[in-house]
Amino acid sequence: MPTTTWNRHHVLSLADFTSAEYDTVLQTAASFQEVLSRRTKKVPTLQGHVVANLFFEPSTRTRSSFELAAKRLSADTLNFTAATSSMTKGETILDTAKTYLAMGTDIMVVRHREAGVPNAIAAEMNRLGVRVSVLNAGDGQHEHPSQALLDLFTICSLIDPNHPRLELLKNKKIAIVGDILHSRVARSNIWSFIASGAQLHLAAPPTLLPKLFAEYILEHSELTTGEFIISSSPSSPTPQLFLHWQLEPALQDADFVMTLRLQKERMTAHLLPSLREYHQLFGITRTKLQLCKPNVKVLHPGPVNRGVEISSQLMDDPEFSLIQSQVTSGIAVRMALLYLLGSGKS
Amino acid sequence: MPTTTWNRHHVLSLADFTSAEYDTVLQTAASFQEVLSRRTKKVPTLQGHVVANLFFEPSTRTRSSFELAAKRLSADTLNFTAATSSMTKGETILDTAKTYLAMGTDIMVVRHREAGVPNAIAAEMNRLGVRVSVLNAGDGQHEHPSQALLDLFTICSLIDPNHPRLELLKNKKIAIVGDILHSRVARSNIWSFIASGAQLHLAAPPTLLPKLFAEYILEHSELTTGEFIISSSPSSPTPQLFLHWQLEPALQDADFVMTLRLQKERMTAHLLPSLREYHQLFGITRTKLQLCKPNVKVLHPGPVNRGVEISSQLMDDPEFSLIQSQVTSGIAVRMALLYLLGSGKS
Amino acid sequence: MPTTTWNRHHVLSLADFTSAEYDTVLQTAASFQEVLSRRTKKVPTLQGHVVANLFFEPSTRTRSSFELAAKRLSADTLNFTAATSSMTKGETILDTAKTYLAMGTDIMVVRHREAGVPNAIAAEMNRLGVRVSVLNAGDGQHEHPSQALLDLFTICSLIDPNHPRLELLKNKKIAIVGDILHSRVARSNIWSFIASGAQLHLAAPPTLLPKLFAEYILEHSELTTGEFIISSSPSSPTPQLFLHWQLEPALQDADFVMTLRLQKERMTAHLLPSLREYHQLFGITRTKLQLCKPNVKVLHPGPVNRGVEISSQLMDDPEFSLIQSQVTSGIAVRMALLYLLGSGKS
Repeated sequence: MPTTTWNRHHVLSLADFTSAEYDTVLQTAASFQEVLSRRTKKVPTLQGHVVANLFFEPSTRTRSSFELAAKRLSADTLNFTAATSSMTKGETILDTAKTYLAMGTDIMVVRHREAGVPNAIAAEMNRLGVRVSVLNAGDGQHEHPSQALLDLFTICSLIDPNHPRLELLKNKKIAIVGDILHSRVARSNIWSFIASGAQLHLAAPPTLLPKLFAEYILEHSELTTGEFIISSSPSSPTPQLFLHWQLEPALQDADFVMTLRLQKERMTAHLLPSLREYHQLFGITRTKLQLCKPNVKVLHPGPVNRGVEISSQLMDDPEFSLIQSQVTSGIAVRMALLYLLGSGKS
Repeated sequence: MPTTTWNRHHVLSLADFTSAEYDTVLQTAASFQEVLSRRTKKVPTLQGHVVANLFFEPSTRTRSSFELAAKRLSADTLNFTAATSSMTKGETILDTAKTYLAMGTDIMVVRHREAGVPNAIAAEMNRLGVRVSVLNAGDGQHEHPSQALLDLFTICSLIDPNHPRLELLKNKKIAIVGDILHSRVARSNIWSFIASGAQLHLAAPPTLLPKLFAEYILEHSELTTGEFIISSSPSSPTPQLFLHWQLEPALQDADFVMTLRLQKERMTAHLLPSLREYHQLFGITRTKLQLCKPNVKVLHPGPVNRGVEISSQLMDDPEFSLIQSQVTSGIAVRMALLYLLGSGKS
Repeated sequence: MPTTTWNRHHVLSLADFTSAEYDTVLQTAASFQEVLSRRTKKVPTLQGHVVANLFFEPSTRTRSSFELAAKRLSADTLNFTAATSSMTKGETILDTAKTYLAMGTDIMVVRHREAGVPNAIAAEMNRLGVRVSVLNAGDGQHEHPSQALLDLFTICSLIDPNHPRLELLKNKKIAIVGDILHSRVARSNIWSFIASGAQLHLAAPPTLLPKLFAEYILEHSELTTGEFIISSSPSSPTPQLFLHWQLEPALQDADFVMTLRLQKERMTAHLLPSLREYHQLFGITRTKLQLCKPNVKVLHPGPVNRGVEISSQLMDDPEFSLIQSQVTSGIAVRMALLYLLGSGKS
């Protein structure tokens, strides 16, 4: 493992992540990626530690990824799912968390449909003065930091497998396309890509990308330019963040295109006319990719609605699609996060 | 581990536990509590053993506690939950248990909403002449022995952390408050506290603590006094068990106060007027605790309805509340029970 | 472990299993059966390997059996159940499988209510050129190979515990009784028993055993006799497969009787008059067993409807019932399959 000055006790948001922290995660994940290529894929790093997956909102993919990451570090895992829980018995979320604390949990991986729940649990743990760490595994429409970190790792490892680091993205053009307003993944992605110095282009219908959203981002980021452009042709030399209500200007010369899952509920909420029209306007296909750089790569956090956000053919095309790499990176990145939060404890 | 003459093959009820058995559990749990304070919290004691959690009634807290206890003893665990089971396919409970037996289960941890199911499974295992152990993890309104043992351990460890033992409770005044009639926890608690020689005071509205209940307890206990008192001022020198239909005489000079969970269904069954009135009459608050000894401690088996059985403020007050300690004790006590049932086998 | 020339990469069906493959599974399972009788029942064979149980159809028994088999080989296990999955989010089955592939799964154990799903996943894995193995844990009414292999192992081990092998069944009379048409277990059993050279007698009401079924079996088997007989008194010297619409000719001098689970839904589909009449005509009882060889044994894949397919008394009679042995064999046979698929990889 790389020597590091990691001091973060919880991972709740990427909004205040420093470049050094990003690079520590990326380098640690690269070390674990190497472990995963060995015959025996386990390391005894977190033996005797307990990782509790507190999934108040059900999930298969993310929970399995954290569970396997924990097992490969030799930690013991506890799975809590809301369906079979004492939540139905009237216990508060903080009391559930404190119960897992009292059982000896070292790291809590928390998912909840309401934004802010992982932060509230972490605040309570801090108040109690205990050393348990909280890792946000997706809270409402707020953040999903481990997903954004695995996206970052997937891209940076592609550029330099041996030494993935944030600065590799400097001046790369990255497009994020789709339901940005409701996406916790996008929100975490935005912080990491802004931090990297990439040129970040967001593209969506206005109902899914209101101007207020960009203002929020600028307000909370350290973008010194203080500028953003809503247009199809950026003219200013300095801005990093661009909003588009059409797809084409975002794809133009892009190095990476991230598509987002479109929740079908958006339709019933009258935010979209039809899935078919959405796919025509914002769905990514091989034809539309011709606007991008020739070696453009496409990402998607999954699960994918084939033929909606992305064409089925493109999703399966190994020349363009990084979707499977993202899942594999997920194990290494989550091992890295659990390692960084867990080591030095107990 | 302490040397011991433990001969019990199942843990189904505390009604016939001997003082020596209580002390063996307490001392063994103390040893494991010490293990849990080490850097590596696992011991290889039950490596290769299989602990099956047969939870016909869903549970998060108790199942997680048993699962973690088993993992810390290096056992393999299997989780059965009724929701996804072949129960829905018409199989009997005993056939389900025999299936887990045939798979090689060493210890079955059984929870069921009907009283007597763990006993029935244990009887069947005895009839078959197999060495599998059954541990009652809560059956209907009957018993929940591991919960009562962890309550006992929590209290005794507080008095003498190095050498927790039953006699430490002799002549201590312990109040159990709340829905005693429907509580499997209370029923198990009563056996252990009677065995300890504590003065045990039960307090609840008459609908939740009928006189018949006390007669049942006396009939099945070894209380030689054969006396119980339903009054607010005990006058006899010898009795150990007191019933009260008001809270105050139970709290007067109490050393420990155990509050019980109030299931909200009791309201719809017309056993209670309102939660608000219940809290006023029987809810425990810091003000009401002034009747107790100055260093009184409060316990609750969880999950807690804050503001019903106990005030939110008191629950979080580390000066009085042992609620978190109970959860922590749960791991050590369940490790002790699994160890005592599992070692010497296979 | 026996030296072997096992080359099979997936276990999807027994239709094309060779005698050598059957014997390899039987011998490997015998070795693991021996391991299971030791004090420490774990072997480090698959340490660091990941076995993912992808149960799109819920199951307790089979999932627990595979999970325990995997744990006893020291593999890490991931459990996917449809109820809490992203399936509900619109992801395709192949995409779910590819997600588990990308996480580093070595063996996928797949159950689905539709026939052909494990084959489709295996075909996709082959197309991708990856080394992951797929094991069919029951697909629709198609096959359930591990169940048939454990039935085979149970019978062969009874005849020669030290050296179970296919030829032990040559000329044994085996009756399969019940809902053959809808049984994936029966379909897999038929392939293995035909391969063994046993005389196989199927008995069921015509609605549950149409003539077309036998024609299908003959078409897909390598039975050179090409003959089958629908009668109560077989007259030809050579045929191996017999169909009966009454129970008695199937039981006459049988060495082994396999009863099948009757799904109660068959009643509502008007395939059966009543459970009571079914039990009278096709339910197995001690009285009816008098037609068989004196040391006849009875099997059932479970879960059992007592008093329907088999009388409660007979099910519990250790002189005749192999039902518990089947469950025990299940662990050894599934360890063998996971071992054979998993070793040599990574």
